Amino acid sequence: MPNIGIVGAGIAGLHLGLLLRRHDVPVTIYTDKSPAQLANGRLLNSVAHHAPTIERERELGVHFWPVEEYGYACHHHYVGGEQPLSFRGDFARASSAIDYRLYLPRLAEAYEERGGKLDVRLLQAEDLEPLAEAHDLLVVAAGRGAFSALFPRREDASPYDRPQRRLCVGLYRGIAESQPKGVTISVSPGHGELLEIPLYSAEGFVTALLFENIPGGDLEVLADLSYADDPKAFERTVLDKLATHHPQTFERVDPARFELTGPLDLLQGALTPTVRQDYAKLPNGKYALAIGDVHTVVDPVIGQGANSASHSAWVTGQEILSDYGFDELFCRRVAAARADVVLGAANWTNLMLAPPPEHLLELFGAMARHQHIADEFTDNFDYPDRQWQILATAERTREYLARRTGSAA
Amino acid sequence: MPNIGIVGAGIAGLHLGLLLRRHDVPVTIYTDKSPAQLANGRLLNSVAHHAPTIERERELGVHFWPVEEYGYACHHHYVGGEQPLSFRGDFARASSAIDYRLYLPRLAEAYEERGGKLDVRLLQAEDLEPLAEAHDLLVVAAGRGAFSALFPRREDASPYDRPQRRLCVGLYRGIAESQPKGVTISVSPGHGELLEIPLYSAEGFVTALLFENIPGGDLEVLADLSYADDPKAFERTVLDKLATHHPQTFERVDPARFELTGPLDLLQGALTPTVRQDYAKLPNGKYALAIGDVHTVVDPVIGQGANSASHSAWVTGQEILSDYGFDELFCRRVAAARADVVLGAANWTNLMLAPPPEHLLELFGAMARHQHIADEFTDNFDYPDRQWQILATAERTREYLARRTGSAA
Repeated sequence: MPNIGIVGAGIAGLHLGLLLRRHDVPVTIYTDKSPAQLANGRLLNSVAHHAPTIERERELGVHFWPVEEYGYACHHHYVGGEQPLSFRGDFARASSAIDYRLYLPRLAEAYEERGGKLDVRLLQAEDLEPLAEAHDLLVVAAGRGAFSALFPRREDASPYDRPQRRLCVGLYRGIAESQPKGVTISVSPGHGELLEIPLYSAEGFVTALLFENIPGGDLEVLADLSYADDPKAFERTVLDKLATHHPQTFERVDPARFELTGPLDLLQGALTPTVRQDYAKLPNGKYALAIGDVHTVVDPVIGQGANSASHSAWVTGQEILSDYGFDELFCRRVAAARADVVLGAANWTNLMLAPPPEHLLELFGAMARHQHIADEFTDNFDYPDRQWQILATAERTREYLARRTGSAA
Repeated sequence: MPNIGIVGAGIAGLHLGLLLRRHDVPVTIYTDKSPAQLANGRLLNSVAHHAPTIERERELGVHFWPVEEYGYACHHHYVGGEQPLSFRGDFARASSAIDYRLYLPRLAEAYEERGGKLDVRLLQAEDLEPLAEAHDLLVVAAGRGAFSALFPRREDASPYDRPQRRLCVGLYRGIAESQPKGVTISVSPGHGELLEIPLYSAEGFVTALLFENIPGGDLEVLADLSYADDPKAFERTVLDKLATHHPQTFERVDPARFELTGPLDLLQGALTPTVRQDYAKLPNGKYALAIGDVHTVVDPVIGQGANSASHSAWVTGQEILSDYGFDELFCRRVAAARADVVLGAANWTNLMLAPPPEHLLELFGAMARHQHIADEFTDNFDYPDRQWQILATAERTREYLARRTGSAA
């Protein structure tokens, strides 16, 4: 029976640890923050889990917030401009968003109940090799911190060298749910996107507003504005920007009740989308495998990161359970098995961050006119590999549209 | 609807063409020999089809020789030496061997009945670009001829620069079937292997003897000896070599009846195992995809070539049917989807051609002692990817054996 070490206790580390524990594989997860610290800390993200991730939660016995009760099943799209577009796309299977300050500690608890070891300590890069000695395989699932240098950036899959959006995500009261309940994806051309997400937090259902702000645009201020300095001014600015740029969400706001749910329920920052090498050979001859953010960090603009990380964890776990060694062949098998979904998510996300090419606008236009195309685009949030097959080139998008609308390409 | 051109009418070209025709995709197969020429020509090979290939034949509606009647379900192993090993491995699902001079013309007929075009002409390398102009995608499935230069050899996957065996394969009368009916795989250490295959040819069930002779060994003469010059001397030499090197087959020979079934039922030669690039960009910007022998030519020592080619055709067909373009992304998707099986077959075959490493001998020893290990090795002829996971390194083989025999690794 192999003994697996996992660095990082986010969704990738926990899903992998839980999968291995279901098969009685000895696992230790190393993390620099305890579950209690996470639970009482700052908002971590506003991520939604899509159906394949929820399916994995069910298989792991950790689907603690039943999607039937906590989820939603559509995307409301709003594309601003001179002739705004507004349309809806439906998922075949529901998604849901649970505050990771509830989600991760609950999964860590389940992991420990099932015999997984959780070792809370601050790790540096030089700690990796002793850890590798103690395990048959080291899986690095910690996106932040000292470990990314182990996995060189893949230039061929990393088109950006700086953040393309400056982010401001917070949890709010005073916004009525969209009908039917769903995520609203609102685009303010030249300024950025808003993802409005029905999210379940410690205080119940709230609204996450994830502002994806283009540097230099009118919305960038949201990434810099200090809530602590003047909460009311912060909230007023958010409301003003909503009114100007994201009217479909603004019209559901009750200004008298609108407020951030708490000072820790806000996260501002930015990240550089980066795809790194799948694995590294350590000086002692063993291999370290990268999963989750340390392998592929994507901008949250289309909510693919956590789902991609969970997929990667799942593929890794299946290979650990079925393979006979943790050598380079093992690492290459994992890399090959996840590439389609994980690189699909990264490539698609990176396309959405660029100034929209003509074929993307054509697709949006078709979505507004054809319900089945809007539904398929929405459902492909579950299948980023399929989405990328459609979006990778203008020729592909046009061929796809021709087939779906019955016209010649 | 795309229009696909396929160069080559072997198993890869025909399986792909038949799959596409089932979905009404326009296809033209280009070949330099007509089905009638093949039917009346020299023996092409002595290949067995394993269960996944037979499953594809069923799905294509071209399983014309029902495996229940024409097949076999085991391998008889004989490893010579001071302490010979003799054991049997059973398949979960049967395999079969049909003379390709029956098989390919019958499939070509089905292909044409179903609307596929067959264009018989001698093609040169310079013909490819005009063909590419006439089709949305060109698939090169012709292993011999002028096209391999388009796809550079992959050094990382091609360990040999010359043939490792000199081959002599013929169809014979006068050999009683093994019991239960199966393929006999006989190893004469230092001299080579014999595959004795129950094969169905135009005259009914016969025995194919595929001598895989190590250059410089006592059996190499079989690759050079002329049947035409002196048929009786040829057959006497074959019998002598059988008696000396492959006694488990020799003991079922009736010398009075033993003879080649006909002067064309013999093929002598050699090939250099080579893995080539998956695809090439043509000067006109279109892509040519390699499948079958032009992509991966393997020595026939473990009968993987045709099955690998059929798998590759199937993967290619599925991608053609589901994708939206025939660009580099398409080619990379095909390459990734088939790599596990196709490179597994190539790597495993190349290992079997080398002087046997210690871990392979340990596996053979375990097969002789443990029926379930012999059966799994046999069944993995259907799954070369799984076989390679076991055989890729000594550590893997030992871990596998430890798990299967319940001892610590």
